[in-house]
Amino acid sequence: MTRLIDRQSKLFKVLKTSKDTRARLSILQTAHGEIRLPVFMPVGTNATVKAIFHEDLEKLNTDVILANTYHLFLRPGMEIIKEAGGLHKFMSWDKPILTDSGGYQVFSLSKMRKVLDEGVEFQSHLDGTTYFFSPEDIMRMEGILGSDIIMPLDECVGYPCKRKEAQIACARTTLWAKKAREYFLAQEQKDRQLLFGIVQGATFWDLRRQSAQELVDIGFDGYAIGGLSVGEPDELLQEALGHTEPFLPGGHPRYLMGLGMPDQIVKAVGEGMDMFDTVVPTRYGRYGSVFTKEGRVIIRNGEFSRDQKPLDPACDCFVCKKYTRSYIRHLFNSHEILGLQLASYHNIYFYLKLMERIRQAIGEDRYREFQKEFCTCYNSTS
Amino acid sequence: MTRLIDRQSKLFKVLKTSKDTRARLSILQTAHGEIRLPVFMPVGTNATVKAIFHEDLEKLNTDVILANTYHLFLRPGMEIIKEAGGLHKFMSWDKPILTDSGGYQVFSLSKMRKVLDEGVEFQSHLDGTTYFFSPEDIMRMEGILGSDIIMPLDECVGYPCKRKEAQIACARTTLWAKKAREYFLAQEQKDRQLLFGIVQGATFWDLRRQSAQELVDIGFDGYAIGGLSVGEPDELLQEALGHTEPFLPGGHPRYLMGLGMPDQIVKAVGEGMDMFDTVVPTRYGRYGSVFTKEGRVIIRNGEFSRDQKPLDPACDCFVCKKYTRSYIRHLFNSHEILGLQLASYHNIYFYLKLMERIRQAIGEDRYREFQKEFCTCYNSTS
Repeated sequence: MTRLIDRQSKLFKVLKTSKDTRARLSILQTAHGEIRLPVFMPVGTNATVKAIFHEDLEKLNTDVILANTYHLFLRPGMEIIKEAGGLHKFMSWDKPILTDSGGYQVFSLSKMRKVLDEGVEFQSHLDGTTYFFSPEDIMRMEGILGSDIIMPLDECVGYPCKRKEAQIACARTTLWAKKAREYFLAQEQKDRQLLFGIVQGATFWDLRRQSAQELVDIGFDGYAIGGLSVGEPDELLQEALGHTEPFLPGGHPRYLMGLGMPDQIVKAVGEGMDMFDTVVPTRYGRYGSVFTKEGRVIIRNGEFSRDQKPLDPACDCFVCKKYTRSYIRHLFNSHEILGLQLASYHNIYFYLKLMERIRQAIGEDRYREFQKEFCTCYNSTS
Repeated sequence: MTRLIDRQSKLFKVLKTSKDTRARLSILQTAHGEIRLPVFMPVGTNATVKAIFHEDLEKLNTDVILANTYHLFLRPGMEIIKEAGGLHKFMSWDKPILTDSGGYQVFSLSKMRKVLDEGVEFQSHLDGTTYFFSPEDIMRMEGILGSDIIMPLDECVGYPCKRKEAQIACARTTLWAKKAREYFLAQEQKDRQLLFGIVQGATFWDLRRQSAQELVDIGFDGYAIGGLSVGEPDELLQEALGHTEPFLPGGHPRYLMGLGMPDQIVKAVGEGMDMFDTVVPTRYGRYGSVFTKEGRVIIRNGEFSRDQKPLDPACDCFVCKKYTRSYIRHLFNSHEILGLQLASYHNIYFYLKLMERIRQAIGEDRYREFQKEFCTCYNSTS
């Protein structure tokens, strides 16, 4: 069920702030229910979190999943989703959905692209057809999708990148953000959707600061940090957060896009980040790499052929309660789909459970301690 | 939990016989619980029913699943399963398992084979390594697996096949059945496992009869009809049943190996068959072909792109209660694993539900009526 949202009563509430980190516990209201932050959003690019049943996501109290406008535009196409009555109905998911604009995908997947102030022309990575997206097109499409949180078109750059290039992309991202916001406010969708702004600026801290300030001046329901997790070293990522977070208003959610490994998320929460998404748990799961309290385990390895222990002895998910490493290794070696189903489920469970523990630690005001304990244990075997 | 079986108290009980067909409702006791017949056994060749969670099989009241000795011998190997404490523990499945010997696989998959009275030499289809299976080897391996119903090594022929070839294979199958039975009776495994015999004889009715009679003379816990569903026309299959069933004792279960499509199963039950297995529901599911009351539907087809109906409007499985054809078609077109998970689940549900309806119809003594109704409706759109 969709409810109208009411920006007069605060949609975002901070419940608790950590005393000795910048971590915070908060709640975000959306048209399909509330999201408890810090949150991990399982990635469902094509309107499915790969190899995971919706029923399992629901049972695991997943608050929000992510889908991608670029991918859904190409396949199945907006007309088909419109005919179903929007993305929630199309995929039978009644809880919040965040849709990324596809800016990142246009820049990372498409064969050719031409960026103008009006928008971006690109060739589909599926069949080479040429399309054009304006910032307004993306808003219109996300209106059809009916997702609860929508992202505007932005221009991403890679790592490393020249200052001039970052500067141009930053300016264009601000221009597009403004156009998107104007279009959005003129539509009825503003009563059902939250629109976030995306900070760019690569690894140039003054550009990051400027980008953040320009977006805050326009005014969004939340702020995302984009253009990270594109190959930069871990230290730079932490530094980027330190140089951006101070310029994002405390009264709005902060979304660190496309990140990350469990210990990166734990650190970023300590830097004041509230929302995360990454394909890591499902992608790694499909390749037989599973997360445990003590780090990552490559389940295909020969050492596990007779291992009667669960994937993670500290985990209480149904996979760990029932199956042995020996059996799951056999499934991967036999190219059996059940192997990746079990590993993907376990990994998603690991991420969601981690966020629960993060929220609990902030609630009990022991986040610094938790962060230290988690990272020490997680990195103990690697 | 494994219980010892007691051949003194009848393991197989016929509860009801159809008045105007040869269909029967019965129960078979095994060390891991009872099996309600007629039964469909989902195929889990490599110790997994492809893309289906064990939990879902359990929820669907699956009485028995099938696994394959040849495949499990090659991967993960008997030592690993032995170390786990047998196949049930290795795969975490506590209900009955039937293991096929792999006779069929040696003849259909392996690169080279040399058949002697002592057994068969063959090359693994995985890496070309040469192995030798004697009838006694197969019994020993199935003893390690600890499956509830075990099949002896048999020699399969294809279709069409020359009489001479069928005759030799038949004689060898009887010889191997005798050796297997002798080995089996000398082992403790006889107190926990049921051993079936496999009738061969291709499409030569006198050979089928002779094979059945020779096996009955040796004496088995149940009788299987092998060497069918190898490409012969549907009429010949029905004829083969008519020419074999009369020679199989009514006081033992009859297993029609490797069959079949839903309407074939419905017909074969009417010919007195009790047990069925086929990869059809999961294999077809993986390729987007789903079973409905009115026949098979190829969900990838363009006609379903905007179809808001469930896979089968007459089905009450969770997939049909929740998802549309439009969404599932999108998943297949996007090569998303969830598509084949949903289609495989629906198809397995369809087969298991069909068997429930078959048992109910026999119980209410209206099998002929049911059979006619089912086949008319099932073939209505094809």
